[in-house]
Amino acid sequence: MSTIGIGLAGFGTVGAGVYKNLAANRELLSQRAGVDMEIKRIAVRDPSKPRDISLPAGTTTDNWQEVVDDPEVQVVVELMGGMDSARALFERAIRAGKPVVTGNKALIAEHGLDLFKLAAEHRVPIFYEAAAAGGIPIIKAMRESFVGNHILRMVGIINGTSNFILTRMTELGETYQEALAEAQRLGYAEADPTLDVNGWDAGHKAVILASLAYGFWVAAQDIFVEGIESITAEDIRFAHLLGYHVKHLAVIQAESREQVEVRVHPAFIPNGHVLASVNGVFNAVMVEGDVVGETLFYGRGAGQDPTASAVLADMAEAAATVDGLKRRCLGFTPHQLYGRCKPIDEVVCQFYLRLDVVDQPGTLAQVANVLGSHQIGISSVIQPESHDADSVPLVLMIHDARTGDMNKARATIEALPCVKSVAALIRVENSANE
Amino acid sequence: MSTIGIGLAGFGTVGAGVYKNLAANRELLSQRAGVDMEIKRIAVRDPSKPRDISLPAGTTTDNWQEVVDDPEVQVVVELMGGMDSARALFERAIRAGKPVVTGNKALIAEHGLDLFKLAAEHRVPIFYEAAAAGGIPIIKAMRESFVGNHILRMVGIINGTSNFILTRMTELGETYQEALAEAQRLGYAEADPTLDVNGWDAGHKAVILASLAYGFWVAAQDIFVEGIESITAEDIRFAHLLGYHVKHLAVIQAESREQVEVRVHPAFIPNGHVLASVNGVFNAVMVEGDVVGETLFYGRGAGQDPTASAVLADMAEAAATVDGLKRRCLGFTPHQLYGRCKPIDEVVCQFYLRLDVVDQPGTLAQVANVLGSHQIGISSVIQPESHDADSVPLVLMIHDARTGDMNKARATIEALPCVKSVAALIRVENSANE
Repeated sequence: MSTIGIGLAGFGTVGAGVYKNLAANRELLSQRAGVDMEIKRIAVRDPSKPRDISLPAGTTTDNWQEVVDDPEVQVVVELMGGMDSARALFERAIRAGKPVVTGNKALIAEHGLDLFKLAAEHRVPIFYEAAAAGGIPIIKAMRESFVGNHILRMVGIINGTSNFILTRMTELGETYQEALAEAQRLGYAEADPTLDVNGWDAGHKAVILASLAYGFWVAAQDIFVEGIESITAEDIRFAHLLGYHVKHLAVIQAESREQVEVRVHPAFIPNGHVLASVNGVFNAVMVEGDVVGETLFYGRGAGQDPTASAVLADMAEAAATVDGLKRRCLGFTPHQLYGRCKPIDEVVCQFYLRLDVVDQPGTLAQVANVLGSHQIGISSVIQPESHDADSVPLVLMIHDARTGDMNKARATIEALPCVKSVAALIRVENSANE
Repeated sequence: MSTIGIGLAGFGTVGAGVYKNLAANRELLSQRAGVDMEIKRIAVRDPSKPRDISLPAGTTTDNWQEVVDDPEVQVVVELMGGMDSARALFERAIRAGKPVVTGNKALIAEHGLDLFKLAAEHRVPIFYEAAAAGGIPIIKAMRESFVGNHILRMVGIINGTSNFILTRMTELGETYQEALAEAQRLGYAEADPTLDVNGWDAGHKAVILASLAYGFWVAAQDIFVEGIESITAEDIRFAHLLGYHVKHLAVIQAESREQVEVRVHPAFIPNGHVLASVNGVFNAVMVEGDVVGETLFYGRGAGQDPTASAVLADMAEAAATVDGLKRRCLGFTPHQLYGRCKPIDEVVCQFYLRLDVVDQPGTLAQVANVLGSHQIGISSVIQPESHDADSVPLVLMIHDARTGDMNKARATIEALPCVKSVAALIRVENSANE
């Protein structure tokens, strides 16, 4: 297996997340991707700054050009943010024939057209999954999975900070200022939250998504962007009264084949709408295509790890490109960390158990005895009144039980004289809860 | 641009959907994918059968081998279903070095390991996005987007027929038999619905998803599968009473690094769970990764068009592979069907308008007059009582209005002596409703 050298330009929150997660999951990643990745060079703002992560000696530099120029670096990952240096890095990497991975949404939204043109001229691939909706693979879906669809509409919640603030205002009745302060306290909003709350973080993402959907580069100045700063607790109360939630949405749609709407603004959406239940820092993007119909993608749109997940995927794809895409499309790549399916008898579940029982005293005690003798606990019991004197339902919610034990207990219960039948035994997936 | 020859083996519902949608969207698809695709040969069961779609003379054959062997066919799309012929086709195409696209979940689940081994030996890519969850790009997400994640858990609703039946039973109180009959009437269930309702359609998909997640080929006989046939209206009523929905779930999870749980069965899930609101024929798959956190993918899991969407994406990828992946990764490909952003003034929206007005008779009439003079209709009005004698809120929900007109009306309203201020003007996205 080849090892592809990676250069990391920028070691802030996301850069450190990429480093940390690559270190943790490198073996898995290389098995799956068919190519190994090693970070050879890292540009940091201040190499002398103490860090939680100890970087190998000689790896760091305060000059991003050294990262791009390092002959061992074959893929450049731009996580510096900002505009001028990031753009210069892009151009330098492309001219050197090195694929670029970035999460810099402002750079792509403002200069994507030029950068992609340069990349196409030099036939150098560039990847930017992390530039929109963090861990949600919406860029790949738009570029590849919906390639056969005219996109009719996209509606998304694509700024986690705004959504967190609106969720607090809705659920806790906080004012905008209170909710913003809480977002800052939790690290969901920057000290300067301007780009989040004035809508332009979402605006840049909307530029990227609209461009992918409609095939011409949408200029940032041509879209309509409004933030959440002027949303008041009073409007949220009226929304509630009228049956709506207030969300900050990006709406991208084409009603004709001539022009498209791209607008980013707060909006009332009906309570029953699927986006109304997207809360906190989560993002979601609804995509409607003429072939696929309605789809929805949901996940964490920002933060160290979700963004790192997107960067790692792009790095693997870029590395595979450098390596000649040797294994990418071969259907299934064993990675052998887990070797077997757990036999169902050993699987622990909660259960709903419905019995038809004889309506007589002591029945519940007998059933509970059987369950207890198999170390199975009961979390609740319902025994509704029955009009059928002969037979009544007895419903038990069962704590975690090994399936094998549950089946043995079931057989014993079925044989009790007071039990006419085991009418239903259905698993309960509380564990899958949000 | 190269034209890649496609061979279609099978012309049932999905095959016809692929043909129809490729014909409709071919220009768009070729612009985006950087490669053109032309269907050169089609294997049909009965070439003499009259069809809605007229196929070019000489295209059809009743022998799939002719499709694979045709020198003009460079990518083979297997949509015959079934097992033996499909497997033979796969092997013949792989040995001929022709990439294969399939939606045959039973074939992949039962024989994937052998087929992938053969494909790897011959270095021929195979694609099967349509084999799990139809139009939802979950295979690509698992293979590529989450490549840097240990998958902690997947929980999915991946059989639309079962979900449709359970939704009818839950929402309309129908019996299993009534709901099944309705599913058959609407074409959501086959005349023989066995594989849907006994859980094995979902079981095959779970095999594929679990194998991708955990890197060893999960044998169908090692997983636990239970269908929905024994779910009764009574259990659904008890579930409701206890705060649960009954859904047919695939649960795939690893609690240790040694073994994984793969089980497919009906389950109670709490009402507030995100999967509880996935209704009708829709599918959804929740994926939790150690880096990305929780994500959800939602869409139509079956049907002619959603499945065709997945097949078209795979075809484009297969064709690009044949063509040497010349343009795939270049960031952004113009496709120029839509040329400009609609100016925001021309965009038609619904609005929520909140005014601070003087509490005197005639205020609403004056405001309504201004709106009317701009051809803007009011759909509802709220004027709550105010304790501030000086100023009261007046809330209007506005019908579709051009933004430009709305802004003009707003300026005129703002200048009315009875209006103290326009406190809020927020868009309403009813159109985005499910």
